[in-house]
Amino acid sequence: METTTLRRVYDVYEDRCPTRLVLDRIADKWAVLILDHLNGGPMRFNHIRRDIKGISQKVLSQTLKRLERDGLVSRTVFATVPVTVEYALTPLGHTLTETVAALTHWAERNIEAVLTAQKSYDAAAELR
Amino acid sequence: METTTLRRVYDVYEDRCPTRLVLDRIADKWAVLILDHLNGGPMRFNHIRRDIKGISQKVLSQTLKRLERDGLVSRTVFATVPVTVEYALTPLGHTLTETVAALTHWAERNIEAVLTAQKSYDAAAELR
Repeated sequence: METTTLRRVYDVYEDRCPTRLVLDRIADKWAVLILDHLNGGPMRFNHIRRDIKGISQKVLSQTLKRLERDGLVSRTVFATVPVTVEYALTPLGHTLTETVAALTHWAERNIEAVLTAQKSYDAAAELR
Repeated sequence: METTTLRRVYDVYEDRCPTRLVLDRIADKWAVLILDHLNGGPMRFNHIRRDIKGISQKVLSQTLKRLERDGLVSRTVFATVPVTVEYALTPLGHTLTETVAALTHWAERNIEAVLTAQKSYDAAAELR
Protein backbone atom coordinates (compact mmCIF):
# COMPACT_ATOMS: atom_id res chain seq x y z
CA MET A 1 0.00 0.00 0.00
CA GLU A 2 1.29 3.42 -0.96
CA THR A 3 -0.27 5.13 2.04
CA THR A 4 2.02 3.37 4.50
CA THR A 5 4.97 5.38 3.21
CA LEU A 6 3.13 8.56 4.20
CA ARG A 7 2.40 7.38 7.73
CA ARG A 8 4.18 9.26 10.50
CA VAL A 9 6.93 7.15 12.04
CA TYR A 10 6.01 8.21 15.58
CA ASP A 11 2.48 8.88 16.77
CA VAL A 12 1.56 9.72 20.37
CA TYR A 13 -1.91 8.26 19.82
CA GLU A 14 -0.43 4.77 19.42
CA ASP A 15 -0.07 3.10 22.80
CA ARG A 16 3.10 1.24 21.88
CA CYS A 17 4.77 4.31 20.41
CA PRO A 18 7.90 5.33 22.36
CA THR A 19 6.76 8.98 22.29
CA ARG A 20 4.31 7.93 25.02
CA LEU A 21 7.31 7.32 27.28
CA VAL A 22 8.42 10.90 26.68
CA LEU A 23 4.92 12.23 27.35
CA ASP A 24 4.81 10.27 30.60
CA ARG A 25 8.00 11.96 31.69
CA ILE A 26 7.36 15.53 30.60
CA ALA A 27 3.68 15.39 31.51
CA ASP A 28 4.76 14.99 35.14
CA LYS A 29 4.12 17.94 37.42
CA TRP A 30 7.50 17.79 39.19
CA ALA A 31 9.46 17.31 35.97
CA VAL A 32 7.67 20.32 34.48
CA LEU A 33 8.51 22.47 37.51
CA ILE A 34 12.17 21.34 37.54
CA LEU A 35 12.70 21.97 33.81
CA ASP A 36 11.04 25.38 34.06
CA HIS A 37 13.19 26.25 37.06
CA LEU A 38 16.50 25.14 35.47
CA ASN A 39 15.72 27.56 32.64
CA GLY A 40 17.15 30.20 34.95
CA GLY A 41 20.59 28.52 34.84
CA PRO A 42 22.53 25.62 36.43
CA MET A 43 21.53 24.90 40.00
CA ARG A 44 22.51 22.72 42.97
CA PHE A 45 20.26 19.99 44.33
CA ASN A 46 19.42 21.76 47.58
CA HIS A 47 18.79 25.01 45.78
CA ILE A 48 16.17 23.33 43.54
CA ARG A 49 14.66 21.61 46.54
CA ARG A 50 14.34 24.88 48.43
CA ASP A 51 12.70 26.68 45.49
CA ILE A 52 10.14 24.03 44.54
CA LYS A 53 7.92 23.94 47.60
CA GLY A 54 6.57 20.56 48.65
CA ILE A 55 8.95 18.33 46.67
CA SER A 56 10.60 15.62 48.77
CA GLN A 57 14.32 14.77 48.58
CA LYS A 58 13.44 11.32 47.19
CA VAL A 59 11.09 12.56 44.46
CA LEU A 60 13.51 15.33 43.42
CA SER A 61 16.35 12.82 43.21
CA GLN A 62 14.30 10.31 41.19
CA THR A 63 12.92 12.95 38.83
CA LEU A 64 16.39 14.43 38.18
CA LYS A 65 17.74 10.94 37.42
CA ARG A 66 14.97 10.29 34.90
CA LEU A 67 15.49 13.69 33.27
CA GLU A 68 19.24 12.96 33.10
CA ARG A 69 18.58 9.55 31.55
CA ASP A 70 16.31 11.18 28.93
CA GLY A 71 19.12 13.58 28.03
CA LEU A 72 17.17 16.64 29.18
CA VAL A 73 19.27 17.53 32.22
CA SER A 74 23.04 17.24 32.82
CA ARG A 75 24.68 16.51 36.15
CA THR A 76 28.12 17.94 36.86
CA VAL A 77 30.19 16.99 39.90
CA PHE A 78 32.75 19.50 41.22
CA ALA A 79 35.58 18.13 43.38
CA THR A 80 35.03 20.59 46.22
CA VAL A 81 34.86 19.60 49.91
CA PRO A 82 32.09 18.60 50.33
CA VAL A 83 31.44 17.59 46.72
CA THR A 84 29.21 20.00 44.76
CA VAL A 85 26.70 18.61 42.27
CA GLU A 86 25.11 20.95 39.77
CA TYR A 87 22.18 20.29 37.45
CA ALA A 88 21.61 22.12 34.17
CA LEU A 89 19.45 21.93 31.05
CA THR A 90 21.10 20.19 28.07
CA PRO A 91 20.59 21.64 24.56
CA LEU A 92 17.77 19.07 24.14
CA GLY A 93 16.29 20.18 27.47
CA HIS A 94 16.40 23.80 26.27
CA THR A 95 14.20 22.92 23.27
CA LEU A 96 11.56 21.78 25.76
CA THR A 97 11.54 24.76 28.11
CA GLU A 98 9.55 27.14 25.93
CA THR A 99 6.75 24.58 25.78
CA VAL A 100 7.05 23.88 29.48
CA ALA A 101 7.04 27.59 30.35
CA ALA A 102 3.89 28.08 28.29
CA LEU A 103 2.21 25.31 30.29
CA THR A 104 3.10 26.66 33.75
CA HIS A 105 2.23 30.20 32.74
CA TRP A 106 -1.10 29.09 31.30
CA ALA A 107 -1.88 27.65 34.74
CA GLU A 108 -1.02 30.93 36.46
CA ARG A 109 -3.02 33.01 33.97
CA ASN A 110 -6.14 30.84 33.88
CA ILE A 111 -6.58 29.52 37.40
CA GLU A 112 -9.41 31.99 38.15
CA ALA A 113 -11.45 30.69 35.20
CA VAL A 114 -10.80 27.09 36.24
CA LEU A 115 -11.82 27.70 39.87
CA THR A 116 -15.02 29.41 38.68
CA ALA A 117 -15.80 26.47 36.37
CA GLN A 118 -15.24 24.00 39.22
CA LYS A 119 -17.63 25.92 41.48
CA SER A 120 -20.46 25.92 38.92
CA TYR A 121 -19.86 22.26 38.06
CA ASP A 122 -20.06 21.29 41.75
CA ALA A 123 -23.17 23.43 42.30
CA ALA A 124 -24.90 21.79 39.30
CA ALA A 125 -23.85 18.32 40.52
CA GLU A 126 -25.54 18.97 43.88
CA LEU A 127 -28.83 19.71 42.13
CA ARG A 128 -28.86 16.39 40.23
CA MET B 1 6.70 46.00 52.89
CA GLU B 2 6.40 47.53 49.46
CA THR B 3 7.69 44.38 47.72
CA THR B 4 4.62 42.36 48.67
CA THR B 5 2.51 44.40 46.28
CA LEU B 6 4.78 43.28 43.44
CA ARG B 7 4.50 39.61 44.33
CA ARG B 8 2.63 37.45 41.80
CA VAL B 9 -0.77 36.44 43.13
CA TYR B 10 -0.40 32.90 41.84
CA ASP B 11 2.88 31.00 41.76
CA VAL B 12 3.25 27.37 40.62
CA TYR B 13 6.35 27.03 42.82
CA GLU B 14 4.22 27.42 45.94
CA ASP B 15 2.83 24.06 47.06
CA ARG B 16 -0.43 25.48 48.36
CA CYS B 17 -1.07 27.57 45.24
CA PRO B 18 -4.21 26.48 43.35
CA THR B 19 -2.29 26.61 40.04
CA ARG B 20 -0.71 23.34 41.18
CA LEU B 21 -4.17 21.75 40.84
CA VAL B 22 -4.29 22.91 37.23
CA LEU B 23 -0.79 21.59 36.56
CA ASP B 24 -1.76 18.24 38.05
CA ARG B 25 -4.64 18.03 35.61
CA ILE B 26 -3.01 19.27 32.43
CA ALA B 27 0.29 17.55 33.18
CA ASP B 28 -1.55 14.22 32.86
CA LYS B 29 -0.75 12.13 29.79
CA TRP B 30 -4.36 11.15 29.04
CA ALA B 31 -5.70 14.67 29.56
CA VAL B 32 -3.03 15.99 27.19
CA LEU B 33 -3.96 13.43 24.51
CA ILE B 34 -7.70 14.10 24.88
CA LEU B 35 -7.33 17.91 24.69
CA ASP B 36 -5.05 17.60 21.66
CA HIS B 37 -7.50 15.24 19.99
CA LEU B 38 -10.59 17.41 20.62
CA ASN B 39 -8.75 20.21 18.82
CA GLY B 40 -10.00 18.50 15.66
CA GLY B 41 -13.63 19.22 16.62
CA PRO B 42 -16.44 17.83 18.84
CA MET B 43 -16.34 14.09 19.27
CA ARG B 44 -18.33 11.22 20.77
CA PHE B 45 -17.06 9.15 23.71
CA ASN B 46 -16.50 5.96 21.70
CA HIS B 47 -14.82 7.87 18.92
CA ILE B 48 -12.26 9.32 21.36
CA ARG B 49 -11.77 5.92 22.95
CA ARG B 50 -11.11 4.31 19.57
CA ASP B 51 -8.57 6.96 18.53
CA ILE B 52 -6.55 7.09 21.73
CA LYS B 53 -5.05 3.62 21.86
CA GLY B 54 -4.70 2.01 25.26
CA ILE B 55 -7.08 4.26 27.23
CA SER B 56 -9.67 2.33 29.27
CA GLN B 57 -13.36 3.27 29.39
CA LYS B 58 -13.00 4.10 33.10
CA VAL B 59 -9.96 6.34 32.70
CA LEU B 60 -11.46 8.15 29.69
CA SER B 61 -14.69 8.74 31.59
CA GLN B 62 -12.88 10.03 34.71
CA THR B 63 -10.53 12.25 32.72
CA LEU B 64 -13.40 13.78 30.70
CA LYS B 65 -15.30 14.51 33.93
CA ARG B 66 -12.30 16.28 35.43
CA LEU B 67 -11.74 18.29 32.24
CA GLU B 68 -15.43 19.23 32.24
CA ARG B 69 -15.26 20.27 35.90
CA ASP B 70 -12.22 22.45 35.11
CA GLY B 71 -14.20 24.16 32.35
CA LEU B 72 -11.89 22.91 29.59
CA VAL B 73 -14.30 20.49 27.92
CA SER B 74 -18.07 20.71 27.40
CA ARG B 75 -20.46 17.76 27.33
CA THR B 76 -23.58 17.95 25.15
CA VAL B 77 -26.35 15.36 25.26
CA PHE B 78 -28.50 14.85 22.15
CA ALA B 79 -31.93 13.25 22.62
CA THR B 80 -31.40 10.58 19.99
CA VAL B 81 -32.17 6.86 20.51
CA PRO B 82 -29.81 5.76 21.95
CA VAL B 83 -28.73 9.04 23.53
CA THR B 84 -25.68 10.67 21.88
CA VAL B 85 -23.11 12.43 24.05
CA GLU B 86 -20.59 14.74 22.43
CA TYR B 87 -17.48 16.30 23.96
CA ALA B 88 -15.89 19.52 22.73
CA LEU B 89 -13.28 22.05 23.76
CA THR B 90 -14.63 25.15 25.53
CA PRO B 91 -13.14 28.59 24.68
CA LEU B 92 -10.92 28.14 27.79
CA GLY B 93 -9.91 24.69 26.55
CA HIS B 94 -8.98 26.20 23.20
CA THR B 95 -6.49 28.55 24.88
CA LEU B 96 -4.71 25.46 26.19
CA THR B 97 -4.49 23.45 22.97
CA GLU B 98 -1.62 25.33 21.36
CA THR B 99 0.51 24.62 24.41
CA VAL B 100 -0.68 21.03 24.53
CA ALA B 101 -0.02 20.52 20.81
CA ALA B 102 3.50 21.87 21.24
CA LEU B 103 4.10 19.30 23.99
CA THR B 104 2.89 16.26 22.03
CA HIS B 105 4.70 17.38 18.90
CA TRP B 106 7.91 17.94 20.82
CA ALA B 107 7.67 14.30 21.91
CA GLU B 108 7.23 13.13 18.32
CA ARG B 109 10.08 15.29 17.03
CA ASN B 110 12.60 14.47 19.77
CA ILE B 111 12.02 10.84 20.66
CA GLU B 112 15.14 9.72 18.72
CA ALA B 113 17.36 12.01 20.75
CA VAL B 114 15.75 10.82 24.00
CA LEU B 115 16.14 7.12 23.10
CA THR B 116 19.82 7.72 22.23
CA ALA B 117 20.36 9.53 25.55
CA GLN B 118 18.71 6.66 27.45
CA LYS B 119 20.99 4.11 25.76
CA SER B 120 24.18 5.96 26.65
CA TYR B 121 22.96 6.61 30.21
CA ASP B 122 22.21 2.90 30.70
CA ALA B 123 25.54 1.87 29.14
CA ALA B 124 27.40 4.25 31.48
CA ALA B 125 25.40 2.99 34.48
CA GLU B 126 26.50 -0.58 33.74
CA LEU B 127 30.17 0.46 33.92
CA ARG B 128 29.79 2.05 37.37
